[in-house]
Amino acid sequence: MQSRKKVMSLESMNPMVKETKLPIADHLAQRAEELQQDLKQGGKGRPYSEIMKCHTGDICSMGQKPNTFIQQVAAICAYPELLKSASMPEDVKQRAQGILQGVDGFSIGGYNLRYIDYSVPEKIAKFIERRDGGIPSNPRNIIGCHGVNLCIMNVMDLVTTKEPLKTGVLVPVPHCPVYTNALVLADAIKVPYQLDEGNDWALNLQELRQALQEGRKHCNPKILCIINPSNPTGQVQSRKCIEDVIRFAAEEGLLLFADEVLQDLVFGAGYNFHSFKKVLFEMGPKYSSTVQLISCFSFSQGFIGENGLSAGYIEYVNIDPLVMDCTVNKVTSGHPSVLGQIVVDILMTPPLPKDPSYHSFMEEQGMEPDVFFCYKLLEETGVFLAAGSTFGQDEGTYHFRLTLLPPKEKLKSVLQSIRDFQKKFFEEYS
Amino acid sequence: MQSRKKVMSLESMNPMVKETKLPIADHLAQRAEELQQDLKQGGKGRPYSEIMKCHTGDICSMGQKPNTFIQQVAAICAYPELLKSASMPEDVKQRAQGILQGVDGFSIGGYNLRYIDYSVPEKIAKFIERRDGGIPSNPRNIIGCHGVNLCIMNVMDLVTTKEPLKTGVLVPVPHCPVYTNALVLADAIKVPYQLDEGNDWALNLQELRQALQEGRKHCNPKILCIINPSNPTGQVQSRKCIEDVIRFAAEEGLLLFADEVLQDLVFGAGYNFHSFKKVLFEMGPKYSSTVQLISCFSFSQGFIGENGLSAGYIEYVNIDPLVMDCTVNKVTSGHPSVLGQIVVDILMTPPLPKDPSYHSFMEEQGMEPDVFFCYKLLEETGVFLAAGSTFGQDEGTYHFRLTLLPPKEKLKSVLQSIRDFQKKFFEEYS
Repeated sequence: MQSRKKVMSLESMNPMVKETKLPIADHLAQRAEELQQDLKQGGKGRPYSEIMKCHTGDICSMGQKPNTFIQQVAAICAYPELLKSASMPEDVKQRAQGILQGVDGFSIGGYNLRYIDYSVPEKIAKFIERRDGGIPSNPRNIIGCHGVNLCIMNVMDLVTTKEPLKTGVLVPVPHCPVYTNALVLADAIKVPYQLDEGNDWALNLQELRQALQEGRKHCNPKILCIINPSNPTGQVQSRKCIEDVIRFAAEEGLLLFADEVLQDLVFGAGYNFHSFKKVLFEMGPKYSSTVQLISCFSFSQGFIGENGLSAGYIEYVNIDPLVMDCTVNKVTSGHPSVLGQIVVDILMTPPLPKDPSYHSFMEEQGMEPDVFFCYKLLEETGVFLAAGSTFGQDEGTYHFRLTLLPPKEKLKSVLQSIRDFQKKFFEEYS
Repeated sequence: MQSRKKVMSLESMNPMVKETKLPIADHLAQRAEELQQDLKQGGKGRPYSEIMKCHTGDICSMGQKPNTFIQQVAAICAYPELLKSASMPEDVKQRAQGILQGVDGFSIGGYNLRYIDYSVPEKIAKFIERRDGGIPSNPRNIIGCHGVNLCIMNVMDLVTTKEPLKTGVLVPVPHCPVYTNALVLADAIKVPYQLDEGNDWALNLQELRQALQEGRKHCNPKILCIINPSNPTGQVQSRKCIEDVIRFAAEEGLLLFADEVLQDLVFGAGYNFHSFKKVLFEMGPKYSSTVQLISCFSFSQGFIGENGLSAGYIEYVNIDPLVMDCTVNKVTSGHPSVLGQIVVDILMTPPLPKDPSYHSFMEEQGMEPDVFFCYKLLEETGVFLAAGSTFGQDEGTYHFRLTLLPPKEKLKSVLQSIRDFQKKFFEEYS
């Protein structure tokens, strides 16, 4: 029996799953954690005393205060005896009481499928109606989800067929790595369309049309993915752009997948968020009764920044509700819930160890120039940026993503560190 | 454009995903929710005043009290200000303080990947070592997960290859529906082996061997799934049975997938839970250094019954850690976390509506006799059992699963209702 090939090994495993292995960004993140641990133990003469995580939208990791109201309501829901606590504000207690009356056994510990599948979608529908100026939203078309990553994977799974050609999906470049993984796993083909860096990263319809034509030569493009506001560029689409995209989708018979996770993060005079759903319905029944649209939203990336809670929803437009029955049990998140992990933790007695047990080191082989830049910046200054190759970029160009989450008083020195390092880096390597 | 086929419809969708649509059990559950709502509004002369949910392991839905310690620690972690609360016990505060010191920004709101990927697995490893009498467990081989459903799906995805034959997976009958869905989605072949109903549902090695031989005629069996203790039968495997299974897996080159979710639920004198990991290592290096084993556990189905938190883990034995990198970001749960959904809820202002918006009715067409039995029982007595066809059963036999979760004072009348109904049902339909 010793000579048999192992069932599960890098050689024998499903090649499609193997292709989705951790992106290079995660090796940077591992290194950042190691440096942070090292600094906690005094560091070794490093010229910085903390890691500034400007690569991600995780506000807690940068010491911003989370939303007290949410924390308080969540605490009472976890332990309803707190309804008697004198220190909890009255409105918090009322909100928690309302939630608890709608869950099984006055406890969030149960499966609570009625709450998840009916009560919450009803509230989401009312929220969407208010956001979109009264355009109706049907709770039957909404699924509350743990996060959007698995929504994306599920949608790709749902539409993928292989005959006569594999399914194609139009995806903007740059985009989050989850799109790449979802397409690989679903055995679908990525049809990239480049956003226009020279025009503030705007969507260029001509570029989109060319990408579609190119894609049709080797696959069957069915879905057009739009990320608005864009992650990672922050670009916000104009109303005219959205109308053009909807007309294009209608003409070409494409399903629109609108990733609107960052809808609350629109800054700057003259910029407004327009939901694809609202614009679609305002364009009249010629479009609103025919174009298939899936839009998704996550609270975790908004102002409250409760990423670990990974709460969001997905809304379907012009899609048979029976199709939803194939998604309900599969729409989940890419990370386990933190509260769930805390229960695991509670049941394991020992205190938190100070030292990580796993000390693998990043391999510097084959690093892209932008990853190399971010790696060196992290090592030398403690500032952690996301490398552009995480999101995809036009050939021969290199980028980083900077999220401005450090507290105001630290921002200036962070920007100064980046500027000084960039000057030095360019002198050294160009 | 109107004549174009829709991208996402029942006709055009991925046929594999369509096959995973909601099992009949969910229609029963929908009907139970409707009856419960009806009863809340006074009922209409029904001969029962509440629905007794004896079909599922959800203790909260039957009014059992959840674990206070977990609730209290979770509440403090959600809202750290409670560390100052005089009403919280000291040990609770200490535990919560320890957890919070290990998470980013003293808040569970962040992604907290270090906590999830390193701190919790270290504690799980220590827990496993204690359970298994000191046999070592390496945190690097452990993934904390939101629940086991997506672990199962992920493992099936990982090992599935299609050349020259499709991958086969040996699955006991009866088993949870999640196995069927995972295999359909992974495009793998279910190779069923029947548990021996005449011998207290024990695993029969001869039956297993025959099933494997049968399976090898049309696929390439790679995985042997064991559910111990069994869900839904409750059967607990003897140590000798486990040794036989391990020898069988070694001889036949099969990877063992041990679903040990119910390990805390062993009742009756003379019955003990033996983990596959422990038995494997006690059989010596001939087996412990060669047999690939994946075991999974979930706290949600144990005594604490916190299903909504869906906390668990998966441990790999004799599997290349690099394979784990292909699973970390994909191991998730089948249901969104309840705390996450509460945050969605908080952000949606209106109070809980009393009436459900969705009033679909169960179609009685093509109902299996056991589902028909459970449906009638539910309608006439309010007692909700799980139908045997949910888990699979031998041809021509019919079963139900009864979970004994109602409080003790109600149990007698529940059992009486089932007995009286069964008598009446048999008189009417046999």
